[in-house]
Amino acid sequence: MSSVDPEPGVFIAFEGGDGAGKTTQIERLHGWLSQQGREVVVTREPGGTPVGQQIRQLVLHGDDLAPRAEALLFAADRAHHVATVVRPALARGAVVLQDRYLDSSVAYQGAGRDLDADEVQRLSLWATQDLRPDLTVLLDVSPETGRARRGDVHDRLESESDDFHDRVRRHFLSLAEAEAHRYLVVDAALPVDEIAAIVQERVAEIVGVA
Amino acid sequence: MSSVDPEPGVFIAFEGGDGAGKTTQIERLHGWLSQQGREVVVTREPGGTPVGQQIRQLVLHGDDLAPRAEALLFAADRAHHVATVVRPALARGAVVLQDRYLDSSVAYQGAGRDLDADEVQRLSLWATQDLRPDLTVLLDVSPETGRARRGDVHDRLESESDDFHDRVRRHFLSLAEAEAHRYLVVDAALPVDEIAAIVQERVAEIVGVA
Repeated sequence: MSSVDPEPGVFIAFEGGDGAGKTTQIERLHGWLSQQGREVVVTREPGGTPVGQQIRQLVLHGDDLAPRAEALLFAADRAHHVATVVRPALARGAVVLQDRYLDSSVAYQGAGRDLDADEVQRLSLWATQDLRPDLTVLLDVSPETGRARRGDVHDRLESESDDFHDRVRRHFLSLAEAEAHRYLVVDAALPVDEIAAIVQERVAEIVGVA
Repeated sequence: MSSVDPEPGVFIAFEGGDGAGKTTQIERLHGWLSQQGREVVVTREPGGTPVGQQIRQLVLHGDDLAPRAEALLFAADRAHHVATVVRPALARGAVVLQDRYLDSSVAYQGAGRDLDADEVQRLSLWATQDLRPDLTVLLDVSPETGRARRGDVHDRLESESDDFHDRVRRHFLSLAEAEAHRYLVVDAALPVDEIAAIVQERVAEIVGVA
């Protein structure tokens, strides 16, 4: 089906393994953009809508979900979220900061769940009518750092093995390499302030702030 | 991705508009097959698994669900149901009688919801790794008969207009025409016993009962 016309807003996705510090960096960027007078919408997947929260419960705590069913549930959440939250915000000219998007699906499901990564990506693009971020910030975290930061909080995805997290990481990096101009890859082990400055500098170029 | 090897069981789907009498005919066929000593599994979509029941609640009673989200939720239910219920039953050699399958998705979503019917079908085939019924029994019901039989029970899908039900019907019929050898189309206005006899005769050929 047809894609949708470009929107006047700016869509920025934050990706990276668990413990990468996405939440902190989104907060920092949110604060800075608000100071510049921009409308900012912070959202997440899965679970960025009421329907999505129910889907999130099914995915994260459902036992023995068939792999394709899991992929389709993530895609359903995304379809609803993009149609009802992201596109309306972009149409208003807002800056949307999203915690996890397309690349998380490809990396976690494609790498970790024995589904074909290209098929997972096609599913997401169908779900969203081809909405891609203007910029994806990849907070690249080594498996050891991620493990230390995750601490004792576990759900079904987070309790996977180190080997799983390593495969996820390599998928993220290869997606960034394939479309380098649409990515900002930052070492998540850097100090928080330093990462925030790097992200802010790049985003300033995109949103047209000096 | 690859499809899965043929299974020793027999997969029979029942399709048709609301009020077509699918439930009654499935019960009748179930009884007859059991008398022949066959293991029979009766199941349905959406909602044939615990996960599927939760998805069904989301789809039937969720307000303002984006059309692609709805299609993806149906596909997720189907993926899980086929992987955990239908394929294991077919692998044991059972006869699976299913209330709604692929054609309902194509007819209701493709015809009624302004999604491309071919894309909806592709989604389902990906979800199920290309599992198609050995036979689809289409209980063809005129819009007037269907309306009379539906009575006062309504959910979001059933309260659509007559025009919607007519479009659904024509989609069912065109799917049956395209693959006539895999379909049995029966006029749902015939007496219940007569329909049951017609269905039994055709199924007898497939399951190898004299």
